[in-house]
Amino acid sequence: MNDLLLPTLDVLGTFAFAVSGVIAARHRNLDLFGVIFIAFITACGGGIIRDLCLGITPPASLSSWRYLFIALLAVFFTLVFKNWIKKLEYPIFLFDAIGLGIFAVTGASKALHYTGAYETAIIMGVTTAVGGGLLRDVFLNRAPIVLEKEIYASAAIVGTCIVVAGNYLGLQEFFVMLAGATVTFLIRYFSYRNNWNLPRFMGD
Amino acid sequence: MNDLLLPTLDVLGTFAFAVSGVIAARHRNLDLFGVIFIAFITACGGGIIRDLCLGITPPASLSSWRYLFIALLAVFFTLVFKNWIKKLEYPIFLFDAIGLGIFAVTGASKALHYTGAYETAIIMGVTTAVGGGLLRDVFLNRAPIVLEKEIYASAAIVGTCIVVAGNYLGLQEFFVMLAGATVTFLIRYFSYRNNWNLPRFMGD
Amino acid sequence: MNDLLLPTLDVLGTFAFAVSGVIAARHRNLDLFGVIFIAFITACGGGIIRDLCLGITPPASLSSWRYLFIALLAVFFTLVFKNWIKKLEYPIFLFDAIGLGIFAVTGASKALHYTGAYETAIIMGVTTAVGGGLLRDVFLNRAPIVLEKEIYASAAIVGTCIVVAGNYLGLQEFFVMLAGATVTFLIRYFSYRNNWNLPRFMGD
Repeated sequence: MNDLLLPTLDVLGTFAFAVSGVIAARHRNLDLFGVIFIAFITACGGGIIRDLCLGITPPASLSSWRYLFIALLAVFFTLVFKNWIKKLEYPIFLFDAIGLGIFAVTGASKALHYTGAYETAIIMGVTTAVGGGLLRDVFLNRAPIVLEKEIYASAAIVGTCIVVAGNYLGLQEFFVMLAGATVTFLIRYFSYRNNWNLPRFMGD
Repeated sequence: MNDLLLPTLDVLGTFAFAVSGVIAARHRNLDLFGVIFIAFITACGGGIIRDLCLGITPPASLSSWRYLFIALLAVFFTLVFKNWIKKLEYPIFLFDAIGLGIFAVTGASKALHYTGAYETAIIMGVTTAVGGGLLRDVFLNRAPIVLEKEIYASAAIVGTCIVVAGNYLGLQEFFVMLAGATVTFLIRYFSYRNNWNLPRFMGD
Repeated sequence: MNDLLLPTLDVLGTFAFAVSGVIAARHRNLDLFGVIFIAFITACGGGIIRDLCLGITPPASLSSWRYLFIALLAVFFTLVFKNWIKKLEYPIFLFDAIGLGIFAVTGASKALHYTGAYETAIIMGVTTAVGGGLLRDVFLNRAPIVLEKEIYASAAIVGTCIVVAGNYLGLQEFFVMLAGATVTFLIRYFSYRNNWNLPRFMGD
C-alpha cells in the first residue's frame, strides 16, 4: 500500500505544483519554453535542491520522464482550460496544500534515510516543500510569496517535525508520514480559510 | 581531431558567453568585481549546475584557471573595445549562437556518459546551454530573457535530441555532436534573422 | 588553540552575517519564517554552495543544529534590540567585516584540503565569503549589493590568495589563516571608512 500510495500522492503533488507554476507565469509574456520551464522548476525545484544536498546525483526528477511529462501535462491542462482556471482556484489551492504536505513528509523521510540526522530531515523536508515555489518566484523576478504570506512553510515545518518525532519514537513510518502530511494540509487549509498569518517583523 | 576541436569550440563558446555577460552588465553600475563575476557566471554557470547534478565535484570550470582567465579576457576585451561593441553586435550574436550549439551538445554528451539516461542528457544539455544566461539575469535582478524572447532554449533542445538520437542509433559521436551543434546554431541563426518566436502563453 | 579559535570565530561570523540578513529583510513585510530564512541563508548560503561544489553532502550547516540556532538567536537579538540597531550599525559593520575575513580563509582552506587546487581554493573562499549575501539579495529580489558597492569581494580575494600563497610556501596554516583573515578585515575596514571603491565599468 505504501508502494502505491506514495507515488500516487507524489504525482498529484507534482501536478498541483506545476499548475501553480503555470498560473504564476501568465501575464509575464513568457514563451512556451518559459512556461514549461517554470512549471517544471516549481514542481521539481525543491526536490532537486534536496537531492543535491543529500548527494543523490542525478536528482530523481532529472532521471525519469515522469516529472517532465507531468509538467507538460500541467501546461497543456492550464492552456486548454484557461477559462475554467478562475473557477478552479479552489481545487488548485487544495491540490497545492496536498502537495505541500506530501513533499514535506517525503522530503524529510528521504533525508532521514540518507543521513539519519534530525536537523537535516527538517530542513530538507521544508526545502522540498517550498524550494520549488522559491525558485519559481526568483526566475519570475518577483519577491518570493512563501516568505511573505500566510502560513505555508510553517505548516511544512510541523509536518517534518512529526516525521522526526515518529522516527524518534520508533512508530511505523507509513502512518507517521500520513499523519505529517495530513496535519500540514490541515494547518495550511485553515490558515488560508481564516487568513491566519505569522507575525510580521520590523515592518516599521 | 575530436581532442582538438571540442576544447577549441569550448573556449570560443565560453568567450562569447562571457562577452554577452559583460554587455548585459553595463548600465548597471557594477564595480569591476561585479562585472567579472557576471562574465564568469554567464559563461560557466550552466556547466556548474550540470556538473553538480551529475555529481562531478568540483565542477570543471572551478578546477582550472582556463575559464576564469577567459572571463577576465572577455572583460578586458569589452572594456578596451567598448566603442566598437555596438558595431560588433552581429559577430557577438554569432559567437553566442555558436556557444549555444556547443554547450548544448557537450552538456548532453557529458550527461550521457555519466548517467546513460536520455532524459538526463536532454535536460542537462539544455541546462548547460541556457543556465548561465538564466543565472546572469537572476543576479542582475531582471526577468530572464531566455524565458521570453526568440527561439533560444528550443534550439538547444533540438541539438540535445540529435545527440540522444545519434547515441540510440549507435552513430559516431563526433559527427553527431557536430550535427547537433550545427543544427542548433542554424535554428538560432534563422529565428533571430527572421524574428521567429515560440507562441506566447496566457498573455491575456 | 586552532581547535578553539576557529569555531569561535566561525560562530561570531555566522552571527554577524545572520544579523545583517535580518537588517536587510526589514521593510520587506516578511513574516517570521521569511526573516529566519533570510537570516539563515545569509549566514550559511555561501558555505552551502561551497560544500556542494566540493562534494561534501549534506553541507556542514545542514548537519548540525548550531547554525539554525545562531540564525534564530540573531533574529531574536535584532527583534529585541531593534531600537538599538541603528546605534549598533558600527559594531554590526565590524562583525560583518570579521565574518568576511573568517569565511574567506576557512572556505579557501577547506577547498584546498579537499581538492589541492589553488584556483578552486580562491573561488571557493570568495564564494563562502560573499555567496550568502548574494543569495540574500536574490531572495529579497534586489540587485546584489556585493556586485556594486565598496571593496568587499575584493578584500576576500586577497585573503584567499594569502591562504594559497602560504600553502605554496609551506607556512604554518594557522598563522596563514590568521594573516589572511586579518588582511581581509583591514582592507574591508579601511575601504569602508575611506569610501574606497573599485572602478565602475561601462556606466556610460
